[in-house]
Amino acid sequence: MHKELRAGLIGVTGYTGMELVRLLASHPRMRLRFAASRSEAGKRLGEHYPFLEKLPGADLVIQQPDAKQAAAQCDIVFLAVPHGAAMNFAADLRAEGLAVVDLSADFRIRDVAVFEQWYATAHSQRALLQEAVYGLPELYGEAIAKAKLVANPGCYPTAGILGLYPALKHGFISSEDLVIDAKSGTSGAGRKAAVPTLFCEVHDSFRAYNLGKHRHTPEIEQELSIVAGAPVRLSFNPHLLPIDRGIHATMYAKLKDVPGLDEIHTAYMECWKDSPWVRVLPKGSLPETRNVRGSMFCDIGLVLDPRTKRLIVCSVIDNLCRGASGQALANANLMCGLPVDCGLALAPLMP
Amino acid sequence: MHKELRAGLIGVTGYTGMELVRLLASHPRMRLRFAASRSEAGKRLGEHYPFLEKLPGADLVIQQPDAKQAAAQCDIVFLAVPHGAAMNFAADLRAEGLAVVDLSADFRIRDVAVFEQWYATAHSQRALLQEAVYGLPELYGEAIAKAKLVANPGCYPTAGILGLYPALKHGFISSEDLVIDAKSGTSGAGRKAAVPTLFCEVHDSFRAYNLGKHRHTPEIEQELSIVAGAPVRLSFNPHLLPIDRGIHATMYAKLKDVPGLDEIHTAYMECWKDSPWVRVLPKGSLPETRNVRGSMFCDIGLVLDPRTKRLIVCSVIDNLCRGASGQALANANLMCGLPVDCGLALAPLMP
Amino acid sequence: MHKELRAGLIGVTGYTGMELVRLLASHPRMRLRFAASRSEAGKRLGEHYPFLEKLPGADLVIQQPDAKQAAAQCDIVFLAVPHGAAMNFAADLRAEGLAVVDLSADFRIRDVAVFEQWYATAHSQRALLQEAVYGLPELYGEAIAKAKLVANPGCYPTAGILGLYPALKHGFISSEDLVIDAKSGTSGAGRKAAVPTLFCEVHDSFRAYNLGKHRHTPEIEQELSIVAGAPVRLSFNPHLLPIDRGIHATMYAKLKDVPGLDEIHTAYMECWKDSPWVRVLPKGSLPETRNVRGSMFCDIGLVLDPRTKRLIVCSVIDNLCRGASGQALANANLMCGLPVDCGLALAPLMP
Amino acid sequence: MHKELRAGLIGVTGYTGMELVRLLASHPRMRLRFAASRSEAGKRLGEHYPFLEKLPGADLVIQQPDAKQAAAQCDIVFLAVPHGAAMNFAADLRAEGLAVVDLSADFRIRDVAVFEQWYATAHSQRALLQEAVYGLPELYGEAIAKAKLVANPGCYPTAGILGLYPALKHGFISSEDLVIDAKSGTSGAGRKAAVPTLFCEVHDSFRAYNLGKHRHTPEIEQELSIVAGAPVRLSFNPHLLPIDRGIHATMYAKLKDVPGLDEIHTAYMECWKDSPWVRVLPKGSLPETRNVRGSMFCDIGLVLDPRTKRLIVCSVIDNLCRGASGQALANANLMCGLPVDCGLALAPLMP
Repeated sequence: MHKELRAGLIGVTGYTGMELVRLLASHPRMRLRFAASRSEAGKRLGEHYPFLEKLPGADLVIQQPDAKQAAAQCDIVFLAVPHGAAMNFAADLRAEGLAVVDLSADFRIRDVAVFEQWYATAHSQRALLQEAVYGLPELYGEAIAKAKLVANPGCYPTAGILGLYPALKHGFISSEDLVIDAKSGTSGAGRKAAVPTLFCEVHDSFRAYNLGKHRHTPEIEQELSIVAGAPVRLSFNPHLLPIDRGIHATMYAKLKDVPGLDEIHTAYMECWKDSPWVRVLPKGSLPETRNVRGSMFCDIGLVLDPRTKRLIVCSVIDNLCRGASGQALANANLMCGLPVDCGLALAPLMP
Repeated sequence: MHKELRAGLIGVTGYTGMELVRLLASHPRMRLRFAASRSEAGKRLGEHYPFLEKLPGADLVIQQPDAKQAAAQCDIVFLAVPHGAAMNFAADLRAEGLAVVDLSADFRIRDVAVFEQWYATAHSQRALLQEAVYGLPELYGEAIAKAKLVANPGCYPTAGILGLYPALKHGFISSEDLVIDAKSGTSGAGRKAAVPTLFCEVHDSFRAYNLGKHRHTPEIEQELSIVAGAPVRLSFNPHLLPIDRGIHATMYAKLKDVPGLDEIHTAYMECWKDSPWVRVLPKGSLPETRNVRGSMFCDIGLVLDPRTKRLIVCSVIDNLCRGASGQALANANLMCGLPVDCGLALAPLMP
Repeated sequence: MHKELRAGLIGVTGYTGMELVRLLASHPRMRLRFAASRSEAGKRLGEHYPFLEKLPGADLVIQQPDAKQAAAQCDIVFLAVPHGAAMNFAADLRAEGLAVVDLSADFRIRDVAVFEQWYATAHSQRALLQEAVYGLPELYGEAIAKAKLVANPGCYPTAGILGLYPALKHGFISSEDLVIDAKSGTSGAGRKAAVPTLFCEVHDSFRAYNLGKHRHTPEIEQELSIVAGAPVRLSFNPHLLPIDRGIHATMYAKLKDVPGLDEIHTAYMECWKDSPWVRVLPKGSLPETRNVRGSMFCDIGLVLDPRTKRLIVCSVIDNLCRGASGQALANANLMCGLPVDCGLALAPLMP
Repeated sequence: MHKELRAGLIGVTGYTGMELVRLLASHPRMRLRFAASRSEAGKRLGEHYPFLEKLPGADLVIQQPDAKQAAAQCDIVFLAVPHGAAMNFAADLRAEGLAVVDLSADFRIRDVAVFEQWYATAHSQRALLQEAVYGLPELYGEAIAKAKLVANPGCYPTAGILGLYPALKHGFISSEDLVIDAKSGTSGAGRKAAVPTLFCEVHDSFRAYNLGKHRHTPEIEQELSIVAGAPVRLSFNPHLLPIDRGIHATMYAKLKDVPGLDEIHTAYMECWKDSPWVRVLPKGSLPETRNVRGSMFCDIGLVLDPRTKRLIVCSVIDNLCRGASGQALANANLMCGLPVDCGLALAPLMP
């Protein structure tokens, strides 16, 4: 009989906290043993989240955030608090010796100057930043398994990097002139009371936002520059979808030598063959966000447009599961010595 | 050439204010000449509402609410502010001699004690309450035409009263044992930043709220008691729909002498034959909220259930247009001597 | 090590077939070993359902429906075909000695005359009808465990019966004068190409259908008559919701002796305390369909309206999971000697 | 008193026919006098479209399509039938001397070879093709006013051309390397019964389709080549939005000499200053589909990305109104000597 791993969660009121609670409720080896929130402390978790009643975790009483308490009750802690706040929580938790998965952006950008420019926030934990591992399991699985602090990737970067990595690695496409036209479900905008995300402002409508200046841009560029072996500067452009969950990134790249689609498709299949979750669709098929709803899958469709000599990559994930809390749990699995997909072989909810 | 009528609007930031601005933009005889809001004063209306640009009203600069300013610039003023605040605005405007259509609940309930009990608010304008006319044009058209203060009906009461009035008037149904199961689009919940009306909390879900204790209950009972000639006490139960606009009231009544559906249908047709907007559907047809979207129509479907000796009435309106701002404009039309449907022969937006 | 149970599915193209495939993909003891469809035979199941790729079942090749084939490859078979067709499939499968869970209506109604009247179909398997057990695990768990043919309940009846059963059993409410106002997500309408269920016909709209004459009426009456100990004749009235999944039944009952809400609430808690899935909400709370999305839960909210002496029961399920395929799997669990909730302790997908 | 213009419509069952019926119901100078449909002949139009009851057109009886009948009853005819069928109807109607606005693609592509290649259909009316005028009022208003056959533009081309025209005309951007990432509401997919456009297949999901090979590609290239003065070959990539109406085209162009955004914005304002409907948003603002819902507006947002030296143009229309039937009516206005916006100064429906 395996020992149960004890997880903590700081920040339970947002959608990523909610999703982690959902996923931990059916994890076979890890249980939520500590949940903290300034605003909700004192409530049972099941009272705060009626969907959780009769499931593991429902009877946990929400605590005030406290590193020593967390250390006493947990093996690993998930941070689901805003960037800026997360870096200090992480330092406190690491000082207690706890393993930490940070879902914020605070440890994703290796270059402090780039972080401070894009996030307009001074980084107070530079030493810790050196220690952090970027938590994309397909790329950094071994390092994650040894890490004590994992920076969980952003939702858009997860979709973008998984979609472009093989084409850049094989040099099929130019590392210049990349355009990512990305669309995200509204849960990506968080759970804060605000007029622009009210039902009647989002439903039956569609709009772009932060064109050319979204903070996920340097994160995507950082990882793609590594694989391309050259600085990548790309145009990243997000839009808001009237759906709950799902990211669809349509990515436009200039082909270098115009390889055939067969060759590209084979390379993608080969590149991701060991991932439990990346599904390269058959040629001629395109992904849909519903096919990954509630799951860890990343579905990739490939189109070669000979008229304009472009490769078009469609990469689709669930922004809350694969793009946040599910990936955080995959990282925690690795950090705790479990198989990466333990508790994460989730079937998408259709329809 | 007719003189243009000048309208004022106090409260532009909510959905009812927004809808009134939309409707006035295409009114042939009335123009918005004064728009006021504490929080948005100083902005052009088109800046606040980009949908309005290039349409009449876009260039109006939002003012601070002020009765004297309103009097200098308007013939009639619409109040789209919360109940409790409206009664005092109304008094100030009436003191300046202005005609007023109040979209709040402050003047809907004739019995002050009932108002104060359900709204938990003292009524500061009891004299004015005597003067107010309940603004349901099909019932009180003549009185509205002579009124200086009209209490615009609530959205649910509009659907409920129009749907049950003929059956009660003809004595087809018992005035006891009425159940109204009503469903409203989310715009009915207003435009305040709040977690329960965020897109991800409403979309792809459905729930009841305020069962048996919604504030529209006494308003419906007041008007149905008059037509029934006896006190009506009914069970009114609202639900929240993941749609922008639309109310669907399904109403269950006990038949008295079990008349045939033909007789009831004929009586409904006759009762509403002079209304430009009530559409009694053919026997066997049921209404859909989309069929009235953006319009003044009230679509009524009638079902007789011989197994349970009930009449089921489905009454459908657009909660923002017929259930609020469009009806307010119809009342203003009457108060200004225009045909009730001037500028309001609107075709529903389909799909 | 337990022996794996082998499941078959006849009818894979509809939403209930799709849902069963999803649920079996994560069942720890039962695997889909035979899938049949006339129109899709020859395809891999993962090709037909891209959401399933990389999950158990994806590599199964869809067969022609055939009882002998099924018998050779399965321990138990789920029938997800239209009523009328199911009864004959069931006979063939039973002749081969197979255990059968029928998701159609063919074996739900014990009185053949009632079935033939409401479904306008002659029943060709009257002997088999005697053998069938009504598959509501909370009511008939022991009989289901011994059955070879289970009639899986309809979606509306599941919500309705679970919601009214305790009140009728305790005699809190009159068995006359019951009104069920039910709202269902569009997946309940099936996956047939048809104009009325196109996106643009359903989205941002709401309507009633089949008022007073829906075929689930006699099924609900049958089960409630048993618990009430007297014939129940009720008014059942469905509506179509612009959501994928979820049923919300709002049920209006006349209180007999006006017990307090405390007494009723306690009785409900006691009645369903052994169910892994019925959650009686705290007094003052109302259910939401999203809180049960993708799960087996039935959330029940209770409201006592002293003004009209009514008990209002809100009962909420996921129509595809609890209301169809998940409940079918729970029945199969019992028939195969597994715990009823084996593979069915599913956390709802939020948001 | 002006003479009423008499309009005919062939094809009433699709969404474009439905929209034309809606718009004609409130047109001050033109009335629908002839409506034809093979499948619905004999019904009252109000019976077929309950939303239309009590509005002009409701009492029209649907006829069989017949050019002579149309000629007897109309001044101008709208063709809302599939491409391939439209060309022959147009020939018959023109032979009777009728003015025709064709909403299909049959007369949009000037080069027959290009048409026949992309549409895989032989063109049977080549002479008529010479006569046809491309019905984008902002570009061809004078020619439209003299035309007897107008090819109403496609929905995507309307958004694309209006958005890129000024930048190409002024030479701000390269005519090579254009990428259009377009998203359309589901009404653009038509009203045919089909599984992929069922509510449960579209709702809460998002997907691309026809990447690089949509038939609107040559239409956009044709018109942009004219303004660029050089052959334009672009990458056009459509996606399906879970909304009823609305197109959002996000267009990526390489800047030539990196002019400032001020200069580009000023040129756009100047270019479209005479259009009643193109609204160039203030710098820093981005369009939303709901801001144009039900209207003729085309909202354009401009972003200059100095990091990647690109101009990003967001162009937003209502695909059914501006992108089809409203534009058809604008063309009819011009052909009949009316102001282009007669009956088309429509306020968007918000929310």
